[in-house]
This record gives sequence, structure tokens and C-alpha cells, in this order.
Amino acid sequence: MLLSRRLFSMVSQPFIAQLERVLGKEAVKIATGEPSENSYDRRRRIGRAPDVIVVPKDVGQVSSVLKMCNEDSIPVIPFSTTTGLDGFSNTLQGGVFIDLMSMDKIVEVNMGDFNCTVEPGVTHETLNQHLHTTGLWFPGDLGADASICGMAATNASGSNSARYGTMAQNVLNLEVVLSNGNVMYTAGKDRRPRKSAAGYNLTKLFVGSKGTLGVITQTAVRLYARPAVCSVAVCPFRTVDKAIEAVVATLQCSVPIAKIEFLDAATVAACNRYSKLTLVESPTLFLEFHGNSEAEVAEQASLVEEIFASNDGREFNWCHAPEEQKKIWSSLHSVYYAILSEKNNVKGFTIHFSLPTSALAKAVSETRKDIDESGIFGALVGHVGDGSFHCIFLVDDSNQDEMKMIRELSDRIVKRTLASGGSCTDEHGIGISKRKYLENEYGEVAVNTMIAIKKALDPKGIMNPNELFTKN
Amino acid sequence: MLLSRRLFSMVSQPFIAQLERVLGKEAVKIATGEPSENSYDRRRRIGRAPDVIVVPKDVGQVSSVLKMCNEDSIPVIPFSTTTGLDGFSNTLQGGVFIDLMSMDKIVEVNMGDFNCTVEPGVTHETLNQHLHTTGLWFPGDLGADASICGMAATNASGSNSARYGTMAQNVLNLEVVLSNGNVMYTAGKDRRPRKSAAGYNLTKLFVGSKGTLGVITQTAVRLYARPAVCSVAVCPFRTVDKAIEAVVATLQCSVPIAKIEFLDAATVAACNRYSKLTLVESPTLFLEFHGNSEAEVAEQASLVEEIFASNDGREFNWCHAPEEQKKIWSSLHSVYYAILSEKNNVKGFTIHFSLPTSALAKAVSETRKDIDESGIFGALVGHVGDGSFHCIFLVDDSNQDEMKMIRELSDRIVKRTLASGGSCTDEHGIGISKRKYLENEYGEVAVNTMIAIKKALDPKGIMNPNELFTKN
Repeated sequence: MLLSRRLFSMVSQPFIAQLERVLGKEAVKIATGEPSENSYDRRRRIGRAPDVIVVPKDVGQVSSVLKMCNEDSIPVIPFSTTTGLDGFSNTLQGGVFIDLMSMDKIVEVNMGDFNCTVEPGVTHETLNQHLHTTGLWFPGDLGADASICGMAATNASGSNSARYGTMAQNVLNLEVVLSNGNVMYTAGKDRRPRKSAAGYNLTKLFVGSKGTLGVITQTAVRLYARPAVCSVAVCPFRTVDKAIEAVVATLQCSVPIAKIEFLDAATVAACNRYSKLTLVESPTLFLEFHGNSEAEVAEQASLVEEIFASNDGREFNWCHAPEEQKKIWSSLHSVYYAILSEKNNVKGFTIHFSLPTSALAKAVSETRKDIDESGIFGALVGHVGDGSFHCIFLVDDSNQDEMKMIRELSDRIVKRTLASGGSCTDEHGIGISKRKYLENEYGEVAVNTMIAIKKALDPKGIMNPNELFTKN
Repeated sequence: MLLSRRLFSMVSQPFIAQLERVLGKEAVKIATGEPSENSYDRRRRIGRAPDVIVVPKDVGQVSSVLKMCNEDSIPVIPFSTTTGLDGFSNTLQGGVFIDLMSMDKIVEVNMGDFNCTVEPGVTHETLNQHLHTTGLWFPGDLGADASICGMAATNASGSNSARYGTMAQNVLNLEVVLSNGNVMYTAGKDRRPRKSAAGYNLTKLFVGSKGTLGVITQTAVRLYARPAVCSVAVCPFRTVDKAIEAVVATLQCSVPIAKIEFLDAATVAACNRYSKLTLVESPTLFLEFHGNSEAEVAEQASLVEEIFASNDGREFNWCHAPEEQKKIWSSLHSVYYAILSEKNNVKGFTIHFSLPTSALAKAVSETRKDIDESGIFGALVGHVGDGSFHCIFLVDDSNQDEMKMIRELSDRIVKRTLASGGSCTDEHGIGISKRKYLENEYGEVAVNTMIAIKKALDPKGIMNPNELFTKN
């Protein structure tokens, strides 16, 4: 195969021949430079295409690829379902992209210990289908059907994290291939400890490290007993402020709600059109309660109903039928596409952030005001149960003035979030687009510490370069 | 002050004079080499005494001390309540011990966000007294009244961790002084995020790092709403096996019990004598249920009562009066002293480990058999709700044969734990006594990765050397 497309490819012909020898010819693809190859990410088109895409079959092949790349100082970017949002499976320098989707085994389900181990090609929906008859369940519930290993790499969370935690809480062990090709188990081989106070917590260090410290080839996660009773309710509010105040009051009463999702009025209207719903077009909270019994769920629900009523909640509508519940959540999972279909010839531009409970109401109200004043169409949605917010803007990306305005608006919103004690990214990783905020969030000493760790584990800087840090 | 005591002190006279200039004379104490100074730990006497003990008043003074020590390559070992158990505030080389107990401010309580920030001199009991009128509560409940920063340093847990998690789940941010004196906030200054996917999770890396990466000078922890209803029950079983099988069945039903503590028959008898109780002298489980209502607690309790009955539980005795509940837990907190008072002229020798739920029954039964066959007096107790077990042996430490036997027995128990997928230390850190098991638990690649991180953050190796690794 000839690399005719690019004059200054980092990847030489002998290197490719060697990859083909190790992985087999069919597992080594030369990138064509098509626009679709400029990003292994759902929405961002940043940087250039990879040189080569390899499709390893097992951890041994991943290890061989990393050894070769490390020797020749070639960048390595792993990806699986390409459902990321913040541009972390991108490259500014080309290099080798590792497509992990062929490693798709559910390695082990430990029924007695409530955990399982999966390879990168296994998504949360696949896993839950596999677990369907067991009474167990993995609660990571994202809009996209993401890979569980990818969710570990980005510290994803989703709509159930208010009750069940983010990936940081749910990952028990990782099999990781380090930059030099060595294979490591962050909690020790075959271990899925409930707790350990030995050594450093490498598992939590690698969760959210976004391919910059190593390639995750297996993830062991906690499973939960499938809740015996599950109730869903929808409650519209007169104003955004009142809806958010109701959320804050609910969180402060420690009700263990599984989901609290927020949509503003414009988004509810978009969902009505896109998903054929008939919701009241008003700022709305969508709730899900889990429990072992009807009584337990009823108790949680009646407390929340009371809190909502005292915050001018308009009505508490219950969805009892499972199909009705499914329809609600599937509409919310499609919210990005619902908003996108509101205008023609536009692109979606999203930002994600999280806030402390006590700062939610003010920050959300100021953000809504900012968006309204900008004249840009922007929807505000969020997994508010743990302080997550997303803004989805619709923009004509060929219009430079509009792009400039949206960048300034995003910048203002992210900086206000940081000033309110929040985080510049709640669950999608930092990516190329947000790495400029890292020092603002953590401070210089912490960022230098992260860089020192990165250098210690990846001395040649080959692992997903450009993802986290603007300096070296 | 003259350092007459030791010929080869690492700490020179000018160095001490400089410490005195920075901290004030009263804050610099020359160690006298008394036996009590050989360990800043509750039970172990390992290694030699420090050269100097300094008592800083604030983070700036800690930073100055570290800068000086780093320049002169002098070991630094921080300590606070000295309630550790596995020998991690010890030194083999002398050096500067930092007594952090004078930094004892509760820096901030954020009622709206359910969290607070404390300095190292603040213990969990002090914090909970301070929070008493707020309706909030910190659930870390150890036998000893340990420092919260120390609990963060060792990833402590205690008897409520089955429901509320270990320190790894509850620490939100740390102020840390690094080896070069730089002050770092692991989650960014003044942040206590519910979630963030930006950067590496330095907070979780430093939780459990036992003073080997830096000195923790502030810890922000999650608080919880004080449970409205709290019930305590005691249930004796006919055999250890049956008690443990009942625990496993309860865990596998996902009942959110706050505490499940286990004592074997000999320990119950010791508690009866020491704490003037009248418990049935049989392997026994002690339970605590938390809930927002009587109905919620009753539902949990009736499910557990059923599970226990089907595992030959002898009787389910309720303690309703708060004084009665307090008496039960205070007896369990004194269990070490109760066992110690069973024999004259003996020392306590403890090991701690944790096991996956599915391995608990077999491992505990084999451990009990091992102890019985050894002829050594050994009690078996545990925070079994999250798989933690402790063995407490009584030994005559002047009897070399007995000491040899006990070391072999401990070694066998720890190795069996590791072979069953467990951890060699559940909550007390690894200390000098258990670091030899680190590689067995994590594997060589993971331990080398930990060492690489240690070297990156502490290039001169001054931070609590000898604590974690047997090699450099």
C-alpha cells in the first residue's frame, strides 16, 4: 500500500508493513483523508486525519502496536464507538488510530459480587441486554450507546448518576496497555475489590484520563440489582428559576432519586415536534424513582411532589406504563437531534459543565439571560440531579461573525461556571476544545502535577497528544 | 539546642536553627529517643525515632518546612492523631516529623452543598459535634477518633462504609503541600465539585497515598443528612459460616444497611466481660439501619430478618433506646481493648484485609480453622458489610517462637486473601509491615507505575520513605 496522499506522513512504509505482519493486512487501514476521518468523535471536526487505523483483536496486539509506536515516537489515539463530544479522539499530528470495536467480549459476569468485566467494543446497551435475565443491571445511561471502556476513559456519567454515581464510582479495575506496551491491571489482575487501602488508586487515575496515559482494553464495573419498582414523573414549572429551585430543595432533602433531568421551554417544544409528544411547553423536570417496593417509591415521590408544589410546580404527571416511560427517556436521549431539527442549515455546538448545588439557580438563570441577549438559538438541558448542564447552540458555521459570537458566549458561560466553583466539563472530557480552561479550574500547581504524571507514564508523549494540556 | 543523642543525625544544627527561625522555637522539638517516639502510630514500634518534630501553625509553615527538607534531602513524615495501625508514621531513617494537630480549624461548612473543609487537627468526632445542630453528619465512624485528613491519607473507612463509602468516595478536594513546598488543590482552589471530567483525578490519587506524595493540610468531605430514623439489631448465629452466609445473602439483596459488623464467639465473650454486656456468646452480627421514615427502616429490617432466619439466625434483638445503641457501638469500638484484656502480659498483633462478597464465607471459615490449629489466641472481627476483616492475635512478643509462628500465620492468611481476589489491607494503609504484599496484590507493572508517579512528584524521595515500596 502506498501512502501517496500525504507528503510528510509520520508513518513510514516499513512501519506499515510491520503493522501488517503483526495484525494481519485486513486489520491495517490507510486513512484516505475523507472528511469523516478528521474526527473519531460525534460532532467535532478538528485537526487532520490519522495516517493509519489499526483494528487489533486482543490485548497482545494492542501491546505490539504501542511498542512499535513508542519506539518510533508516533502518536496513538484509541477510539471505540466514536460517540464522544468534546474532541478527544482527534489529532493535530496524525499518527495511528486504534479502533477497539473488534475487541467486544463480555469477559466475565460475577453474579455473586455484582460486577462484570468487558472489552472496549461492549456498549452499555449491549451489556444490559446480556444481563437482562439476571436481575442485575449497569446504570450508566447516556444518550449515545457508548462503549463502557470509553465511558471509563472519559469519566462519563449520564442521567442515572445522581443516584448511582459516575464512572469514577463504578469502575473497579482496568486492564490498560501503557505507552511502552506493558499491560497493567490498575487494581491487580482478576481483582474487583470492594475496598483496598494498599498502594495508589491507579483505577481512579486512569478513569477520565482519555487515552493520554494508556489504552483501556478491559473495564470491570459494578452492577446493581435491577430496581423492583420504577416510577417516572414529568413536572412543568412556570419559570426556569422555579424549576431549578425545586431541584436544589430536592437534593438538599437527600431523596435518592435515580434521575432528575431538566429541559427548558424551547427544548420541550422541540421534543414535542421531533418525538411526537404533547408535553406542556414550559421549563420541565423529568424524574425517575427506583426502589425495592411500591411503598419505598411512593414515599420518595410524595416528598418530591410536596417540594415541587411549594416551588410552583404546575402538575405532577405520572407515567406508569413501561412503554410510556421508555418513550419519555428515548425522547430525552434524542434531545440533541430534536433541537438540531428546529432550524435548517445549521450545526449543533454544545458545551457541558457542572455546578455545586448551591450555585445552580443563579448560574442557570444568568446563562439563560446571556443566551437570550445573544440572539443565538440556544437550548438549556441538564442532568441536574448532579449539577450537570448542557447548552446546545444552533449555528451557521460558515458565518464567521456567528462563530465568533458563539465562542465568546461559550467562554463567558464556562468562565462563570468556574467562578461559581463548578467544572468546565461535567462528563464529556476536556478535549482539544476545552483544554485552555484546565489551569483555570485546577490551578498551575495541579496542572503541572498532572503533566509530571503524564511524562512519567508516557515519556515520549505519544498517548493522545493535544488532548489535555496546552503546554508540555 | 544540641543534638547530642545521635551521632549520625541527618539533621544539622544550622538546619534546626533555620526551622526555629521559620516556625518559632516552641514549634521545634528535638526528639529524645524515648520508646514512645519510635512510632507515631497506635501499636507498632518499628524503626528509629525522628530527629526533630515540628508543629506548624498553617500551610505556609508546612510549605517552608518541606522546601527546607527537600533542599537537604531530609525525610518528612506527617502525623496527626497517631491512631494508625499499620506502621505508616514510622521511619527507618529518622528525619523531620510534622505534627499537624495544631492546625485544627473547621475551615468551612457548606450547608447547601452538603460538604465541609477541615484541617488535620479536626477528628470525625469533633466535626460531628460541630455539626450537631445542623441536621448534617459525616459518616466516617472508626474505632479511634482519627483526624479526617489522616483518614483521607490512609483511605480509611470504618463501620458505616457499607452504605456511605470509604474516604475515596467521600473526599471532594485536598489542599496538599508537595515535596518542593508548592501548595496544590487536587480539585482546584475552593472547588468541591459533584463531578468533573476535566484533567486527572488527583484527589483520588492522593487519598490513600499515606504521606508519600505530599502533606494533606485541608480536606473537603461530603456530608450527609442525618438519618431521621436509626435502628440497631443484634443477631447471634450458631456458626461463623452461617453468620457470614447471612451477610452474603443480605449484600446480594442490595439492602442499604448502614452497618453490618461481625464478632466471633470469643470476641463477644471478651466484650461481655470488658464492656459489661450480656450478649449470647456465639458468632454475632450487629446491624444498623438508616432511613427517612420508620416505614423505610422497617422494610429494610424485615427483609434482613427474613434472610437471617433462613440462615439459622438465633434471634433478632432490637435496641431501640439511643443509649442502648450507643452502648453497643462503643463496645464494638473497644473490641481491641476487650480482647487485649483477656490475657496478661500480651501484646495485640492485628491484620486487616478485605474480600469480595462471594469469597467471604470460604475465606473466613478457613481463616478461623487456621487460627484454631495454631493454638494462638486470635479473634476474628469485621466490617463485613463491605468485606473487611480484622484478626486480632494476642502474643507474648518476647517469645521468639511465638512471634515467628504468628508471622507465618499472618502471612498465610494475607496470601490466601490475595489468592481469593481480596486486598492485603482494607482500611489501615499498607505501612512498613505489609509493603511486601504490594506487588502480589497489584502486579509488577502497576507497582512500577506507582513508583514512577512517586518519583515524578517527589524526585528526592523525602516524603514518608519506606511506607509503600520495598524497592525504588
